[in-house]
Amino acid sequence: MALEQVRYEVDQHVATVTLDRPEKLNAWTRRMSEDLREAMRQADDDPSVRVIIFTGAGRGFCAGGDMGLLSDIGADRDRHAVPPAGAFDPRGPVDFHGPDSYFPSISKPIICALNGVAAGIGLVYPLYCDLRFAASEAYFFTAFAQRGAVAEHGMSWLLPRLVGLPNAFDLLYSARRIDAAEALRMGLVNRVVPSAELMSETRAYAQLLATQVSPRSLKVIKRQLWDDQMRGLGPAVAVSQAEMALSFLSDDFREGISHFVERRAPRFTGE
Amino acid sequence: MALEQVRYEVDQHVATVTLDRPEKLNAWTRRMSEDLREAMRQADDDPSVRVIIFTGAGRGFCAGGDMGLLSDIGADRDRHAVPPAGAFDPRGPVDFHGPDSYFPSISKPIICALNGVAAGIGLVYPLYCDLRFAASEAYFFTAFAQRGAVAEHGMSWLLPRLVGLPNAFDLLYSARRIDAAEALRMGLVNRVVPSAELMSETRAYAQLLATQVSPRSLKVIKRQLWDDQMRGLGPAVAVSQAEMALSFLSDDFREGISHFVERRAPRFTGE
Amino acid sequence: MALEQVRYEVDQHVATVTLDRPEKLNAWTRRMSEDLREAMRQADDDPSVRVIIFTGAGRGFCAGGDMGLLSDIGADRDRHAVPPAGAFDPRGPVDFHGPDSYFPSISKPIICALNGVAAGIGLVYPLYCDLRFAASEAYFFTAFAQRGAVAEHGMSWLLPRLVGLPNAFDLLYSARRIDAAEALRMGLVNRVVPSAELMSETRAYAQLLATQVSPRSLKVIKRQLWDDQMRGLGPAVAVSQAEMALSFLSDDFREGISHFVERRAPRFTGE
Repeated sequence: MALEQVRYEVDQHVATVTLDRPEKLNAWTRRMSEDLREAMRQADDDPSVRVIIFTGAGRGFCAGGDMGLLSDIGADRDRHAVPPAGAFDPRGPVDFHGPDSYFPSISKPIICALNGVAAGIGLVYPLYCDLRFAASEAYFFTAFAQRGAVAEHGMSWLLPRLVGLPNAFDLLYSARRIDAAEALRMGLVNRVVPSAELMSETRAYAQLLATQVSPRSLKVIKRQLWDDQMRGLGPAVAVSQAEMALSFLSDDFREGISHFVERRAPRFTGE
Repeated sequence: MALEQVRYEVDQHVATVTLDRPEKLNAWTRRMSEDLREAMRQADDDPSVRVIIFTGAGRGFCAGGDMGLLSDIGADRDRHAVPPAGAFDPRGPVDFHGPDSYFPSISKPIICALNGVAAGIGLVYPLYCDLRFAASEAYFFTAFAQRGAVAEHGMSWLLPRLVGLPNAFDLLYSARRIDAAEALRMGLVNRVVPSAELMSETRAYAQLLATQVSPRSLKVIKRQLWDDQMRGLGPAVAVSQAEMALSFLSDDFREGISHFVERRAPRFTGE
Repeated sequence: MALEQVRYEVDQHVATVTLDRPEKLNAWTRRMSEDLREAMRQADDDPSVRVIIFTGAGRGFCAGGDMGLLSDIGADRDRHAVPPAGAFDPRGPVDFHGPDSYFPSISKPIICALNGVAAGIGLVYPLYCDLRFAASEAYFFTAFAQRGAVAEHGMSWLLPRLVGLPNAFDLLYSARRIDAAEALRMGLVNRVVPSAELMSETRAYAQLLATQVSPRSLKVIKRQLWDDQMRGLGPAVAVSQAEMALSFLSDDFREGISHFVERRAPRFTGE
């Protein structure tokens, strides 16, 4: 499938996935959703890719749902917007595989570079990334309560785990705008950098992950961190012990010791 | 039932519930507990009320349990202080309906305006509010360990979810006083304002919620945020999808799109 | 068993447990692990001990696994490093009793005084302490991904509960060094003090816990805070009510009221 509304590039073990409707502040469409899933699948499947950067083209990251789409839903002209009955299974879909909550199931780190406004569904996806770097001019709002909508796609589960319950209430109730500095204080973003340096700083961090640490470790650690949000310490420790034993048998573990003892740069293979 | 130790007022969609024993720093009594529950029930039932402010009269918010009450318990003269056997069901009462932990089951946002000292049970109730604004002169302490007591009414569940586990240990172990600035750094309060401006700033925020966002959205989002503290991502996403579909059929969703497209102030009805 | 690599001292109700291989930056060995467990058991069993301080001798706290040990594992010469099959029970060991995650099961507060570098397993143990004070010159890194290892001993469960999920991804993915100031901003440590004052400030805090609050309260509160990480609000409230009722019958509760009413220092017994 050719990508139309998303750009996909790979350079030096780092895939960059870019929302690409800059004239519309990358407003969300069904096509964009499908293109994004396809691009992430490619990054996941490509053995040369170790880290994924997710960003937007132009001034904005994603201003939310495209108004044409939302108006159609509001006018009840687009019944497909309503999830099919199966999606209402109270036991829920398998964790991390929902239609708009699958980033944690991608096996490689995803770093979001927030180049501008992120709102509504345009803020949902960044929250499912593992880290977020923001341009100093970016700003954010949840939008939903202003639209008569709800905390969509699991945002009410995820947001408190990033910024704490009190900030989550503030952001979801008021739908007020916060700038990058406040987002940093809340813990919503990991780092704020001048707009002109956002991509270079994000790429430098991605390069660090791609070259200085083990791809095998990244994969296991990503799985552990997300899964441990939903189990007690006992099972988490049991998994960590099993994974520790497996890591001891890996090439990357031998290399991890060797490069340290030999005081040289590592050459991890991910095996 | 006439209220004696709590004041209840409604103005422009906002109910204000005020602990009203200012000569005793609003020290907690059984009567106050009953009056508070009655006032909250009124606010919940009144369709004109969209947001609730919870505060204290005079210099303090609530200095903790009334000493007469505590002395009676200490002298074993008040056996009624001991919860009845049924309360010890290890499966617990239904979440959010405990005798001192029911604020999350009130269907409207509760904003706490901490006008002065809050300690012991006087700190428990603010923690169950959705947001907390504090006067710059207010201060807080958990008190329990100084009294030979325990983390009462679920505070050991709630506090780490607001301020993180390390701060929760510090506050519950040491029972030390923290001022409003430290409370803000920990995330215990959302905002600190000069004492003279506490009520006007709290009312301004409450008015924003009462007029700029959908009451229907607030109700659903409150339910989602509290419930999602106790389930995994899969069920949380399933609920959010079901609620999203229902929201698309609501009047408030149509109005949410219309006022945005028409660039005018919203007129939400909560339907 | 005589302690070789750990020092154990008791003074005025406070036990101090010190990793004692300063010439190796207290690098972790099997013997150290066994000595530490023995020292913690002594502190737990000694009725005169009310609080435990955990620190390292010399410039470092613990630089991670001893390189001899790690090299043996890497060379597959030490099969004992692999946990026995029983440890892989997917239901997990009983919470808080794992071989390197048992500090929460010690019945007294553990305060970690981080005097210098803490990395790898040398950072795991501090995370299982209840509070962390750090010298201003100390620094920290997770190390695992640089070694081709995983998030060991439950660190992926614990770290997000201390510093939030976004910081946990950053620290575990990048394995980058953070200094004490950044650790404080993240919430990884409760307090940073000049190196020369680390032990005096830690002891002052420990003395406050040993003399100003009830040992009985500390014991119950520690149990509540850790257990409540793994249950919903309903069961947490039920336990807090049962514990509240028991506390009302205790000597420490009577003393807690009496010393307050009589405006004198408390004399808690822990009964």
